[in-house]
Amino acid sequence: MEKLIITVALTGNVPTKAMNPHVPMTPEEIARDVRRCADAGAVLFHVHARDDNQRPTLDVRRFKENVRRIKDLAPEVIVQLSTGARAGKDWEARANPVRLLPEMASFTTGSNNLPGIVYENSPQFLEFLAGVFNETGVKPEIEVFETGMINNALYLQRKGLIHPPLHFDFVLGAPGSMPGTVKNLLFLSESIPPGSTWSVAGIGKAEIPLATAAIVMGGHVRVGLEDNLVMPDGSPATNAKLVEKIVRIARETGREIASPDEARRILSLDPARKDLILSNLD
Amino acid sequence: MEKLIITVALTGNVPTKAMNPHVPMTPEEIARDVRRCADAGAVLFHVHARDDNQRPTLDVRRFKENVRRIKDLAPEVIVQLSTGARAGKDWEARANPVRLLPEMASFTTGSNNLPGIVYENSPQFLEFLAGVFNETGVKPEIEVFETGMINNALYLQRKGLIHPPLHFDFVLGAPGSMPGTVKNLLFLSESIPPGSTWSVAGIGKAEIPLATAAIVMGGHVRVGLEDNLVMPDGSPATNAKLVEKIVRIARETGREIASPDEARRILSLDPARKDLILSNLD
Amino acid sequence: MEKLIITVALTGNVPTKAMNPHVPMTPEEIARDVRRCADAGAVLFHVHARDDNQRPTLDVRRFKENVRRIKDLAPEVIVQLSTGARAGKDWEARANPVRLLPEMASFTTGSNNLPGIVYENSPQFLEFLAGVFNETGVKPEIEVFETGMINNALYLQRKGLIHPPLHFDFVLGAPGSMPGTVKNLLFLSESIPPGSTWSVAGIGKAEIPLATAAIVMGGHVRVGLEDNLVMPDGSPATNAKLVEKIVRIARETGREIASPDEARRILSLDPARKDLILSNLD
Amino acid sequence: MEKLIITVALTGNVPTKAMNPHVPMTPEEIARDVRRCADAGAVLFHVHARDDNQRPTLDVRRFKENVRRIKDLAPEVIVQLSTGARAGKDWEARANPVRLLPEMASFTTGSNNLPGIVYENSPQFLEFLAGVFNETGVKPEIEVFETGMINNALYLQRKGLIHPPLHFDFVLGAPGSMPGTVKNLLFLSESIPPGSTWSVAGIGKAEIPLATAAIVMGGHVRVGLEDNLVMPDGSPATNAKLVEKIVRIARETGREIASPDEARRILSLDPARKDLILSNLD
Ligand SMILES: [Zn+2]
Ligand SMILES: [Zn+2]
Ligand SMILES: [Zn+2]
Ligand SMILES: [Zn+2]
Repeated sequence: MEKLIITVALTGNVPTKAMNPHVPMTPEEIARDVRRCADAGAVLFHVHARDDNQRPTLDVRRFKENVRRIKDLAPEVIVQLSTGARAGKDWEARANPVRLLPEMASFTTGSNNLPGIVYENSPQFLEFLAGVFNETGVKPEIEVFETGMINNALYLQRKGLIHPPLHFDFVLGAPGSMPGTVKNLLFLSESIPPGSTWSVAGIGKAEIPLATAAIVMGGHVRVGLEDNLVMPDGSPATNAKLVEKIVRIARETGREIASPDEARRILSLDPARKDLILSNLD
Repeated sequence: MEKLIITVALTGNVPTKAMNPHVPMTPEEIARDVRRCADAGAVLFHVHARDDNQRPTLDVRRFKENVRRIKDLAPEVIVQLSTGARAGKDWEARANPVRLLPEMASFTTGSNNLPGIVYENSPQFLEFLAGVFNETGVKPEIEVFETGMINNALYLQRKGLIHPPLHFDFVLGAPGSMPGTVKNLLFLSESIPPGSTWSVAGIGKAEIPLATAAIVMGGHVRVGLEDNLVMPDGSPATNAKLVEKIVRIARETGREIASPDEARRILSLDPARKDLILSNLD
Repeated sequence: MEKLIITVALTGNVPTKAMNPHVPMTPEEIARDVRRCADAGAVLFHVHARDDNQRPTLDVRRFKENVRRIKDLAPEVIVQLSTGARAGKDWEARANPVRLLPEMASFTTGSNNLPGIVYENSPQFLEFLAGVFNETGVKPEIEVFETGMINNALYLQRKGLIHPPLHFDFVLGAPGSMPGTVKNLLFLSESIPPGSTWSVAGIGKAEIPLATAAIVMGGHVRVGLEDNLVMPDGSPATNAKLVEKIVRIARETGREIASPDEARRILSLDPARKDLILSNLD
Repeated sequence: MEKLIITVALTGNVPTKAMNPHVPMTPEEIARDVRRCADAGAVLFHVHARDDNQRPTLDVRRFKENVRRIKDLAPEVIVQLSTGARAGKDWEARANPVRLLPEMASFTTGSNNLPGIVYENSPQFLEFLAGVFNETGVKPEIEVFETGMINNALYLQRKGLIHPPLHFDFVLGAPGSMPGTVKNLLFLSESIPPGSTWSVAGIGKAEIPLATAAIVMGGHVRVGLEDNLVMPDGSPATNAKLVEKIVRIARETGREIASPDEARRILSLDPARKDLILSNLD
């Protein structure tokens, strides 16, 4: 079994300090949390941006500031910028994080319901954003809330816009979408092409159980306060505590933890692109 | 194994006469097609409305006219009106067919991509439409394009808005959503509560293969020109030919065909409500 | 989807004329049934031998006689000899049909319960018989009654005794072993390596439903009186009627039927070995 | 999710001191290991007997001695005696442990291959042993190496010989039988009737990964030196270390551990039968 890649979804668009005071909001907080999580074993960081009022933003200056501080404190990690829609529906604005040339960016390849909203990613938008991935050479992480999103990604691949091997992240347990069960996780992991890699992001109470299942199934794991704010024992979570827990479970089962460079190899990331983003931060 | 319920999706919102000249558009054409299909073995009819230019409409007068002619020519069949969004996004307009008190109406419990569009059914709309089903006592057919839609239906059931036993229709093979494979069909059929009933509507080339699988799996079948315009041999389909094919396949495998009243019993439809709609047609 | 290979298990070891008068027993009856079934669309014939009292036998002269008559009447078909144990437990006797150099022979790669018996195929016997397949170059059809038998076959492959691409036949619905459900069929079809081919042999009432499922899943089909004696309508089956039914169902769903040579190509059978057995028949 | 029942298969029939010096052989060693494991969180103990030369035996005096010492040191635990065949094929001898009236006894409901042998449990033997379970009122743990064994158990249930709710133990990863994958575990857990309980016994390297999967799937866990002799880090296992590991993993994921009496309730064991065996030990 390959070594385990641990991704952290640090901040997201929804959590507030009121919900959990440990959610990192400022570039400073985010970078420090990356450092802590990297020390614990995480290697891939899914990064959102918040404005001065902690509201989600697609302001590219905020993304730059987040990345600048992360790269200062944890130059070895893989940065994955979010293209999520909660922060704004403007196509160009959603694509801008990709154009900064991070090693990876997230890409939800379809539409579904989430609490209170339709998470809209129309067929036309998918072709647009896939085009941006294609032009920039940034590797997408395909965010899969429903089975059809896998096939939409494969359609974009057939059109030559995104390129195998694909990396999928199965987001399970979000109200409105596919529930967080091992059955659903297995089903999705069997629905992707051979040669793909996958991780799971369990939402809420599903986070640790599904991460645990992924560890013994040979998948990879995403945890973090974007997805879940509470430890299994009911105490408030922190990103670092979640990573530490995953590392302990992996060790108990004999699964080794991937270093950043091992993760790059598993994900077929070109090491030469590791710091491309640095030239886009001013 | 229970007897097989054959549903026909006669017209839909997308097909045109140019695509297949046999698509019934006018009330007259629709009713005559119902009669032919009922003679062949179909019992449940999923009905859309078109305007004088063959464009989809939610105009309630059109629905009334369709039903009036159907009830004239085929008084025994079960009428299921569409609440689909291709014909308009207005909540009230989409709910109006339910308020006519047909025996059933369709209800897609979530959002997904379809060719060229996001098929939007927001969490708020779902609660609204479920409320209309609850008030009117009309039985919904839960249209499932993705797994999460099952769970959204169960959420509405837990809120007391829709009531078990639920009837699900798995719509598989539509570009943008869950592909039309036996694996996906089995997976969905295992994801609904015990006591539920289900049918499959395979889109395009998936129509006959998935219908065939459902026949031997104990599910029910929806066919029709809304879903597929071509026979497996490449010739233009008609609604009646599709029904005749399903009946032949069922007979070959030893599955019996349900009469309208047997279908009502299998679907737990109250026979006393069979003709409620007649008082709403003037 | 590949063309459909139809296999007929003509006689088996258990059925008697008292159970169904159409079971072919003598070489003459068997060969005539092959001819009828081949005319109807079958291409692969799974052949057992019976003695003069209709009892199962591993007497190699009987096998020769059966093959001689089959090759007379239907020289184009693929002959697959049985190595089943109902006719005797002697290792050499079970291997002798393989040594006649038919194009194929059956190979059950594990032990399970069948009505009234343990069907014993010990690990030691498996290595012995795999060795005979290896020496003779005969292609085995791996008969799978339980999941572990797939893995036993892969173990023999890793030992270099049998060679990919493997052809599996899933025997489902025999009392004592894995039941005849679409779920089980899908599960097994997902448990074999990419590049393998598979067919299903449903036992008893499962025969036609599982064959139907295989037709739309892209698998192949085995029918015949060895597996089932009754048509879905309750009338006595004949081998030819079963084949005719499969052909009709395949045609209804748009699946084409493979000719003997197309089957040889799908199964990776060397055409040069087609008539090797003829030199061993005296 | 229910609390987790931890079963220990302490000794088995195959392991030797040479393979792992911690395998408990004598009644004294076995009872001390039970005490250690019970202190760590285990509640159900699957007990075999060995003779003075550490060879497996069905000698009922050995079983009595084992139970006497266990009950002395750990009166609270649930004792489950083995009826396995490695120690002898005599039907009566295999049934004798059941007749001692332990709270549970194991019952493999079918035949399969294991390393070097056919594990024979013929249809006739199954009816015989089920009859003994029926007469004695002892609860069987159905040991499932292959899917068909579930259905054989249900057949015995329909004959009125064993009684729901059934408890199944899925033994996965033994060479010759079903491999130790999460897919296989999920498949089996979906193949048992609602209301059943299940645990998994992963063999060899599959032990901890499958136990981990079961923890997050809501199943129960069997570990122990009968099934696996090595910790995931490659060091020699002990029964207590394996239990401690399971308890740590369960705690990490938020799953609570069942006490002996909680386990009795989950398994529908009659508390009044807890010490019936004590009157049969002299
Ligand atoms: Zn995000
Ligand atoms: Zn419709
Ligand atoms: Zn045979
Ligand atoms: Zn044992």
